[in-house]
Amino acid sequence: MRLLLVNPNMTQAMTDRMAALARAAAPGAEVMALTAPRGFPYISSLAEAQIAGAIALEMIAEAGPVDAAIIAAFGDPGLPAARELFGFPVVGMAEASILSALQLGQRFAIVTFTPAMRGWYLASVEALGAGPRCLGVRTPPDHIAQVGDVAETRRAVLRDLATEAARDGAEVVILGGAPLAGLAHDMAGEVRATLLDPITAATRQAVALAGLGSGRAARPVPKLSTGLSPALARLIAQKDAP
Amino acid sequence: MRLLLVNPNMTQAMTDRMAALARAAAPGAEVMALTAPRGFPYISSLAEAQIAGAIALEMIAEAGPVDAAIIAAFGDPGLPAARELFGFPVVGMAEASILSALQLGQRFAIVTFTPAMRGWYLASVEALGAGPRCLGVRTPPDHIAQVGDVAETRRAVLRDLATEAARDGAEVVILGGAPLAGLAHDMAGEVRATLLDPITAATRQAVALAGLGSGRAARPVPKLSTGLSPALARLIAQKDAP
Amino acid sequence: MRLLLVNPNMTQAMTDRMAALARAAAPGAEVMALTAPRGFPYISSLAEAQIAGAIALEMIAEAGPVDAAIIAAFGDPGLPAARELFGFPVVGMAEASILSALQLGQRFAIVTFTPAMRGWYLASVEALGAGPRCLGVRTPPDHIAQVGDVAETRRAVLRDLATEAARDGAEVVILGGAPLAGLAHDMAGEVRATLLDPITAATRQAVALAGLGSGRAARPVPKLSTGLSPALARLIAQKDAP
Amino acid sequence: MRLLLVNPNMTQAMTDRMAALARAAAPGAEVMALTAPRGFPYISSLAEAQIAGAIALEMIAEAGPVDAAIIAAFGDPGLPAARELFGFPVVGMAEASILSALQLGQRFAIVTFTPAMRGWYLASVEALGAGPRCLGVRTPPDHIAQVGDVAETRRAVLRDLATEAARDGAEVVILGGAPLAGLAHDMAGEVRATLLDPITAATRQAVALAGLGSGRAARPVPKLSTGLSPALARLIAQKDAP
Amino acid sequence: MRLLLVNPNMTQAMTDRMAALARAAAPGAEVMALTAPRGFPYISSLAEAQIAGAIALEMIAEAGPVDAAIIAAFGDPGLPAARELFGFPVVGMAEASILSALQLGQRFAIVTFTPAMRGWYLASVEALGAGPRCLGVRTPPDHIAQVGDVAETRRAVLRDLATEAARDGAEVVILGGAPLAGLAHDMAGEVRATLLDPITAATRQAVALAGLGSGRAARPVPKLSTGLSPALARLIAQKDAP
Amino acid sequence: MRLLLVNPNMTQAMTDRMAALARAAAPGAEVMALTAPRGFPYISSLAEAQIAGAIALEMIAEAGPVDAAIIAAFGDPGLPAARELFGFPVVGMAEASILSALQLGQRFAIVTFTPAMRGWYLASVEALGAGPRCLGVRTPPDHIAQVGDVAETRRAVLRDLATEAARDGAEVVILGGAPLAGLAHDMAGEVRATLLDPITAATRQAVALAGLGSGRAARPVPKLSTGLSPALARLIAQKDAP
Repeated sequence: MRLLLVNPNMTQAMTDRMAALARAAAPGAEVMALTAPRGFPYISSLAEAQIAGAIALEMIAEAGPVDAAIIAAFGDPGLPAARELFGFPVVGMAEASILSALQLGQRFAIVTFTPAMRGWYLASVEALGAGPRCLGVRTPPDHIAQVGDVAETRRAVLRDLATEAARDGAEVVILGGAPLAGLAHDMAGEVRATLLDPITAATRQAVALAGLGSGRAARPVPKLSTGLSPALARLIAQKDAP
Repeated sequence: MRLLLVNPNMTQAMTDRMAALARAAAPGAEVMALTAPRGFPYISSLAEAQIAGAIALEMIAEAGPVDAAIIAAFGDPGLPAARELFGFPVVGMAEASILSALQLGQRFAIVTFTPAMRGWYLASVEALGAGPRCLGVRTPPDHIAQVGDVAETRRAVLRDLATEAARDGAEVVILGGAPLAGLAHDMAGEVRATLLDPITAATRQAVALAGLGSGRAARPVPKLSTGLSPALARLIAQKDAP
Repeated sequence: MRLLLVNPNMTQAMTDRMAALARAAAPGAEVMALTAPRGFPYISSLAEAQIAGAIALEMIAEAGPVDAAIIAAFGDPGLPAARELFGFPVVGMAEASILSALQLGQRFAIVTFTPAMRGWYLASVEALGAGPRCLGVRTPPDHIAQVGDVAETRRAVLRDLATEAARDGAEVVILGGAPLAGLAHDMAGEVRATLLDPITAATRQAVALAGLGSGRAARPVPKLSTGLSPALARLIAQKDAP
Repeated sequence: MRLLLVNPNMTQAMTDRMAALARAAAPGAEVMALTAPRGFPYISSLAEAQIAGAIALEMIAEAGPVDAAIIAAFGDPGLPAARELFGFPVVGMAEASILSALQLGQRFAIVTFTPAMRGWYLASVEALGAGPRCLGVRTPPDHIAQVGDVAETRRAVLRDLATEAARDGAEVVILGGAPLAGLAHDMAGEVRATLLDPITAATRQAVALAGLGSGRAARPVPKLSTGLSPALARLIAQKDAP
Repeated sequence: MRLLLVNPNMTQAMTDRMAALARAAAPGAEVMALTAPRGFPYISSLAEAQIAGAIALEMIAEAGPVDAAIIAAFGDPGLPAARELFGFPVVGMAEASILSALQLGQRFAIVTFTPAMRGWYLASVEALGAGPRCLGVRTPPDHIAQVGDVAETRRAVLRDLATEAARDGAEVVILGGAPLAGLAHDMAGEVRATLLDPITAATRQAVALAGLGSGRAARPVPKLSTGLSPALARLIAQKDAP
Repeated sequence: MRLLLVNPNMTQAMTDRMAALARAAAPGAEVMALTAPRGFPYISSLAEAQIAGAIALEMIAEAGPVDAAIIAAFGDPGLPAARELFGFPVVGMAEASILSALQLGQRFAIVTFTPAMRGWYLASVEALGAGPRCLGVRTPPDHIAQVGDVAETRRAVLRDLATEAARDGAEVVILGGAPLAGLAHDMAGEVRATLLDPITAATRQAVALAGLGSGRAARPVPKLSTGLSPALARLIAQKDAP
């Protein structure tokens, strides 16, 4: 099985860490991991997601057909668009985590490292109709500029937030945001709740859905385009591969 | 990996067919399949589900700890209760199908063989907050008493219903209800939509969630009980295994 | 008028207290009160409700036709199933309280004695679509093991919770959970809100609905069964009384 | 027990018919029935309801304290306002019918005699959060000017609409609108569903809630006013009776 | 362009202040401002709104056809009724503010001067389906009797509430309630959010909608009436002008 | 007042027609109209909207600060992202039409020329919480390839769809989709409902909101980027103009 992990952020170290987690989550699969060639070091706004989502489409189109693809940024930029375009399943970190959480317990919470993400992550929860079962997106009060090692520098406060969520009734706590990839494994046993790692959840969902088809069953009308990457243009014109 | 498939219905032939599909969907796993020792030949009402859900808990408690369990009836009797009780993931056919469909396309529909199930299946969709993306539970107008071979005797009308759902915008069509297990594979290519087999979806989800924990992280208070099966009583008293 | 009150818990003292309240709420009616012959001393989890709901069905089937029945546990175990099975109205403590509260004021709250119930009671509110008018399920922070006399031992904190709910805008406060039966009458005048006793509300609703019919108007298909109590089996086979 | 039935319409014959039904539904109670002294022969728009709702408040204020009051028009004009003002329960025909239907079956429908009411009645259903359990407000295609004897002149089409609703899964059918008062009793047995008469449901709810208090527990600030009826002005100034 | 501003409150000073703001918001338009001839000095309850809404209909009917009308009280008394009756657009302060806020940012909050309004304003938000994007109706803890100069006497606490709302993620803060008219302009620059003045928003919406038609396109059935003001009676009988 | 209209489609004739309508809707304003320099002749899928939304951001960034901007494609590609980025209001055709319709009547419908758009437009309605007041997105059964003159070639069927929507209770009918721009004016008087032209509604909203601020009040963190257009990169780095 060939899985494609596209990181719509430009930070290679983040891709490497996520790829390692994905390989651990899908031992039998080949995981191809790509880093965004343009865009932003780290997406953290709707405007950045609009742009990075379009870049993610190009990255998947370029990498050719696989068994399933993972958009490896927690807000899932470009996800519904990708489902329309590609003939294989595409999963997102936030969506896969939330749908996994719904299957593991009655109530869940999301813990992340910055309040800047709260509104966006809440929108992902609400868009899936999971609002009534979510006990909030919980974050430290202040934004931190240095995102890379936040899983270490903010470890204590993140654990406290997860503990409080468990005390309020969350049976599952998602540790959301690409910079926290892997933290759920590291912190297991320290919190009385099931901790969920989004890359693990997304990779497992990619494996679960591989081969089952995609929304492309009902394709939009073929379109000529101008200024797109060649692979994406071919795909939208339906002279295509993926 | 050890998976447990419990059929809360008493019909062994149905269990056999579903076990075969589960084994095909999880080639590396060992699938243990059990048929309800009491209850009903085939569940089709809320009252039957209330009773069969309690029986499903006993069956899982008896079969001891596994990596994940599947409640193999489309309305998912006993599912939230099971999540509270067992230390491993438990998935349901309806829930797993719906959450898979949400990840494969923008809109989905459910097709089943009898109008008797419509209200119940719709309630499953709404309980997951998936109502806005569901194009209905579509069924033939009349109930059929002989449930066993309905996948053959009603094949034409079921395909027509799936085709209409696709035409109305469903990118994914779930063929719901244990008697239709396997029909999605058989009918693939005849409908311009992704057809989803609930046992396949549930087995894939069981594999995806195995090892990730369960709602039991937040256990209820231990309880003595009277008249329960010994394994279930031990579990609720928390002198337990699973 | 004959009313049946079934306590799906095994605690006789609880049944006695609730029966006295029911008789006071329906002076002209004959109230027959039954205690669960098996199950749990006190239900406080979804798993216990799954099992106790099936026992409640047996209890009602056994007790034969009445004018209306009351399932006397706040989470209403087995309620939708009972409506399908019996030819007379069946009401639940939580549902009857919530629907009464909606008719008495614009916003309501539920106060109960343990945080263990919060998630379950909230689910009852949401299932009725009453979420936007509910100001929360409010409880003391810790669980208490000794449930029997909690109306006395936690009286002060419960009154404070009701007072806070009133201050936040609740015009009606439901004192939920069988162990608090009667407390609303006892505390009337101490809180600037309408305090609602669930057994009183449920009994009044049973009287209100008696003779109006039931969901059994649209009966499911008759079914043979194995291992059920004789009365319940007859009913599901539709060779039946209630 | 003293019940007050206020008909916010000016048609005395309608009041008489509804009062007779209310007396039959509450044999032990004294039912005082009033007809609007100004306003409209029959309310059928939001603008008419705005005006008639204010008149209903005056009528209740004038009639002095009772055990419970019924606003006897299906769209419940003035209902939330009345709850704030009066120290006893006030119920509405639509709300009482819908909340009764929720307790009698899983799904319900409303049948009425004119499409002019559809939007308004649907809004009542949605405002109560009952939308997911409602199978629609079903009406003949055309408006009929002569409202008084519509229960006879349109009997056949109304029965067909109720039968279709039952076939689509409605276990309870509300025959809504003051001109259809009593039709549910007359048509019982002709439709395979529980038929609900709104005046009967509202009267039963008034009895059920009598003595339980009202939203006035949390009174608004006293207010002087100009141009109101004396009783209503006194009440709003809180120099008051009801 | 002729705009009509009707203040359903009887306080002339409030009308004057709102008229000045409306004229500033629509420089090219003629603004006719009317004060309620009866009713209440200041509306602050559902009962008062029921009555004042009927008065607002009379005021608009009397003032004859205009290009658009504004109901200048934050809870929008009589608004849906007015849309049915008049052949020109009618806007409300709360609705226009909320719909403007939705177009200016992702999340908004409402700040007002008294907790008495919270429930009512929240209902306006929810009725528009804007609940998921609203970060609450925020008020000082206590009611203040002297409403007239509350924009000055409570300025500091109102600014703090707005600042907190911004910190919690509100990009737009509505300063709601007629006594706060104009405060948003005065406080601009003191809070890191877009502050919205409801009269300004409503006037701008009135201009935006002028000439586009009204719900009266689908008129209700003509009705005779008793006891209404002559202009309103003529309109409802459809021998009418506006 | 300077308004910017960006057409995220590449068809200049469409831009010209929409610019003329915008100028008629805002007589005093200067309207600058731009056509997408790359992308698609006409957007009709989620994937195309993902890409065109990013292009729209570049177009607005390039054109420099204005009083308000209009994204002139009915599904509003890039709208929430634009609100975050720019210091002036940005409106969308679908959103502005829907929010205008909510202010003109109780129920509305959308009529468009192709079923391909139904899912997308419905999602716009639901995202605004306007679902309960929408009577559907109504379209001819088949897609038409030649989009340019569809307002003429399909005029009869579109009028029939609008008429049916009015008959079903829609007081306002939005004629959605850029190729139908202007049709509402042309068809006025032929349908018993208020017909709404999206460009007119959006332009009026742009004027209404000009000067009131934007979601940028709460700016995201400044970001360096790679490969963006210079103006957009500067803006996201917050060394910016608009």
